[in-house]
Amino acid sequence: MASGGRRPQLRKDAVTNRWVIFSPARAKRPSDFKSKSPSNPNPNPNQKCPFCIGHEHECAPEIFRLPPDNPDWKIRVIQNLYPALARLNPDSDPVPFDRNSDANSVVLEGAGFHDVVIESPLHSIHLSDLSPPEIGDVLLAYRTRIRQIASYDSIKYVQVFKNHGVSAGASMSHSHSQMLALPIVPPVVSARLDGMKEYFEKTQKCSVCEVQGEDRLIDSSTHFISVAPFAATFPFEIWIIPRDHSPHFHEIDDEKIHVNNSDTHTIAQWWTLQAVDLGGLLKLMLRKLSLQLDDPPFNFMIQTSPLEVNASDLSYSHWFLQIVPQLTGVGGFEIGTGCYINPVFPEEAAKVLREVIVL
Amino acid sequence: MASGGRRPQLRKDAVTNRWVIFSPARAKRPSDFKSKSPSNPNPNPNQKCPFCIGHEHECAPEIFRLPPDNPDWKIRVIQNLYPALARLNPDSDPVPFDRNSDANSVVLEGAGFHDVVIESPLHSIHLSDLSPPEIGDVLLAYRTRIRQIASYDSIKYVQVFKNHGVSAGASMSHSHSQMLALPIVPPVVSARLDGMKEYFEKTQKCSVCEVQGEDRLIDSSTHFISVAPFAATFPFEIWIIPRDHSPHFHEIDDEKIHVNNSDTHTIAQWWTLQAVDLGGLLKLMLRKLSLQLDDPPFNFMIQTSPLEVNASDLSYSHWFLQIVPQLTGVGGFEIGTGCYINPVFPEEAAKVLREVIVL
Ligand SMILES: Nc1ncnc2c1ncn2[C@@H]1O[C@H](COP(=O)(O)OP(=O)(O)O[C@H]2O[C@H](CO)[C@@H](O)[C@H](O)[C@H]2O)[C@@H](O)[C@H]1O
Ligand SMILES: Nc1ncnc2c1ncn2[C@@H]1O[C@H](COP(=O)(O)OP(=O)(O)O[C@H]2O[C@H](CO)[C@@H](O)[C@H](O)[C@H]2O)[C@@H](O)[C@H]1O
Repeated sequence: MASGGRRPQLRKDAVTNRWVIFSPARAKRPSDFKSKSPSNPNPNPNQKCPFCIGHEHECAPEIFRLPPDNPDWKIRVIQNLYPALARLNPDSDPVPFDRNSDANSVVLEGAGFHDVVIESPLHSIHLSDLSPPEIGDVLLAYRTRIRQIASYDSIKYVQVFKNHGVSAGASMSHSHSQMLALPIVPPVVSARLDGMKEYFEKTQKCSVCEVQGEDRLIDSSTHFISVAPFAATFPFEIWIIPRDHSPHFHEIDDEKIHVNNSDTHTIAQWWTLQAVDLGGLLKLMLRKLSLQLDDPPFNFMIQTSPLEVNASDLSYSHWFLQIVPQLTGVGGFEIGTGCYINPVFPEEAAKVLREVIVL
Repeated sequence: MASGGRRPQLRKDAVTNRWVIFSPARAKRPSDFKSKSPSNPNPNPNQKCPFCIGHEHECAPEIFRLPPDNPDWKIRVIQNLYPALARLNPDSDPVPFDRNSDANSVVLEGAGFHDVVIESPLHSIHLSDLSPPEIGDVLLAYRTRIRQIASYDSIKYVQVFKNHGVSAGASMSHSHSQMLALPIVPPVVSARLDGMKEYFEKTQKCSVCEVQGEDRLIDSSTHFISVAPFAATFPFEIWIIPRDHSPHFHEIDDEKIHVNNSDTHTIAQWWTLQAVDLGGLLKLMLRKLSLQLDDPPFNFMIQTSPLEVNASDLSYSHWFLQIVPQLTGVGGFEIGTGCYINPVFPEEAAKVLREVIVL
């Protein structure tokens, strides 16, 4: 029956605290609809949009740019023109109030921050086209902005995420990511914290530090490893995990983001020296996914801890970067249950990704 | 800023136990990609597929058909040829075992049932083209199959769901729905049970019985009401709720599924008499969504209780049918947080849907 060889399994990850159904047979379903994945061709290099250099006036206000005050910028962090949340007033810090809290309904003012990080001045450049130090600068821009936001008491969590390609939700093709600062701790984060805590109480160990599994390791750098997680929600999902136990992404130091040896400039040398860090490892993973899966739409998310974690929580909480190519879509089962069906076992995804040759 | 008029809000529903961000401004985002929603034209009436009458041999084995033993069937319940879970052996009832339960990883055999309900013998017919009594028969087919499955101790929950249209996940265009019988209680269901329980403990009332909200009511029938839920996850999401407090869909009786007055045959009479029940109200909601939103892709899910609810849980748990048109897609924010952004307040969706005229 399970014609894919291995029989179906349900797995629950100690980190995410969530069941996933692994079912190789599902990969063989026919479809009588035309292809679902609109291709994501490299955009026309002459195309211009509000995120392009020279079009800054078409954007919502800038928060900062890199290099600072430079018309020839490399990265801009701007307000989202169509924000999901109204902007908190930077001069006061109004705690969002409970407008209507009879037992039936809880309402908060939708106040927070919703920013866009423009990753390149040029329309035709994708994140993975940048060099490892340039990708490191994008990560440093996230860090800077989170550190600014962390001073607002009413903000409980900052979600950094990137949408690449229509099927991954992108409405703008110019390379960018987003940051949404929320007055609540969202449910996926609470579930993860509960999972990590439970594991820690059982074993006195951090569940993320323990993620090793030789057969699910993809690559590694000085300070990070990349793995296919034990109960990957999506086929070819990847986690990039800092080797050092650390609850908050925004406490990362420059050295860990940039490569150690910044004199090493050719791509070939990066890989052979393994002198890459987060910027380089992220680039490597994005290029491997692109080569193996034909430039798939993808999302990445920084899975970090709430801004106010108690000191006692620091021992069980550990941030990581989650990358998910969007290959399958979801249906009523996932909406109804919150349970995902993954046709690819992570051991197999890791094996495939380990072997992709990036020149 | 919130140019859509109303300011953004976060709402938490007592039933789903989940925060949703309401943000009218988001509806105005531009997109530099081509339209995302491939249209769902009525399929070519001459097209044939394995689900068509006369092609039964191309399908996985049949479980039952209606009418029974009739070559001229109206509905068939069959095994899914590419099941997410391996079929439980009907002669034994092996409790799926814990294969590997060190603290880091929990694994269950993926055993259960994954069935397909073919809703019509003809390729060109959509569910909403059927008459209210015919839709009632589809619902009775779900009921019959759940009652069969309920005898297996290892099955904890049965998810009934329908995917219509590519963006709602459908791989087959012939009108059908699916049932997946699971050895676990899935997370959305546990969260809902926790929410309903908490509400009941606070108020001694069932949170679903209390869902009334004049301004969110869409339509009603003798035994059911349809509403836009307080913290709708998706724009134009609808819940059809039985008026009687009842934890399990599969305990519904025939009268509530079929129309009361089965002599009334013209569509016009159904609506004026309100002599419609679940079949009729579901048809009405699907036709309203189709007219208002131009035949959108949609999912529906029966949100019921686990098979083994304790007697004490019966007082707080109440099933309903959830319908979600797929208009927006999701991105990294939703994957990362489990929090959804809905640009349409349910009060506005209900007002629009109340006023759609169905002839
Ligand atoms: N001139 C301008 N100045 C400043 N900002 C501008 C702008 N023009 C557009 N923007 C903003 O730029 C952002 C581009 O973001 P993405 O392409 O990653 O996806 P988007 O947020 O539209 O929605 C995707 O991601 C969200 C969150 O995951 C999902 O809710 C949604 O369904 C999915 O399509 C938009 O949020 C838009 O509001
Ligand atoms: N000859 C045959 N006999 C019997 N069965 C046959 C068959 N040919 C095909 N099938 C089955 O028919 C079903 C058709 O289902 P849908 O079109 O509703 O979506 P599907 O399950 O493919 O995936 C969608 O729904 C699931 C669950 O929500 C998501 O995981 C997924 O991403 C989304 O695309 C498939 O499950 C397929 O296995």
